[in-house]
Amino acid sequence: PDWSAPVRDGVLQLERVYKFKNFKLAWAFSNKVAELAEAEFHHPGILLEWGKVTVTWWTHAINGLHKNDFIMAAKTDQLLD
Amino acid sequence: PDWSAPVRDGVLQLERVYKFKNFKLAWAFSNKVAELAEAEFHHPGILLEWGKVTVTWWTHAINGLHKNDFIMAAKTDQLLD
Repeated sequence: PDWSAPVRDGVLQLERVYKFKNFKLAWAFSNKVAELAEAEFHHPGILLEWGKVTVTWWTHAINGLHKNDFIMAAKTDQLLD
Repeated sequence: PDWSAPVRDGVLQLERVYKFKNFKLAWAFSNKVAELAEAEFHHPGILLEWGKVTVTWWTHAINGLHKNDFIMAAKTDQLLD
């Protein structure tokens, strides 16, 4: 229920909104996601706003979702711990 | 010409897309914008993707644009130097 699968510009994506108590906590989480992205050479959209981070995974090369996006989504969730 | 003024959910916003040669440069810029936001106690949307950062300013309290958003937009541009 945490991840949704919106279609944007015809591209199926995997998206989750993570909520935080303030900007600094959200910012720290967004940097963890960015570190993961660089480590895995797969880069999502990371939208940082006050108290929340929206992470969007999809695979550019196929304009849609690949098995790897689901793996990255699971790894993103693990960053919360 | 660099900033556009989209309306989202009825809220007029100020938005600019900054392009970079890779993820790391985009990431570094997004952190500079986050630092500025914390310093000024005014928080935009900062969307980090591979090679680009989309910054969106608006004032939650008035559901639209305040003079301060234009000042923040100018300060965001200065972070490029």
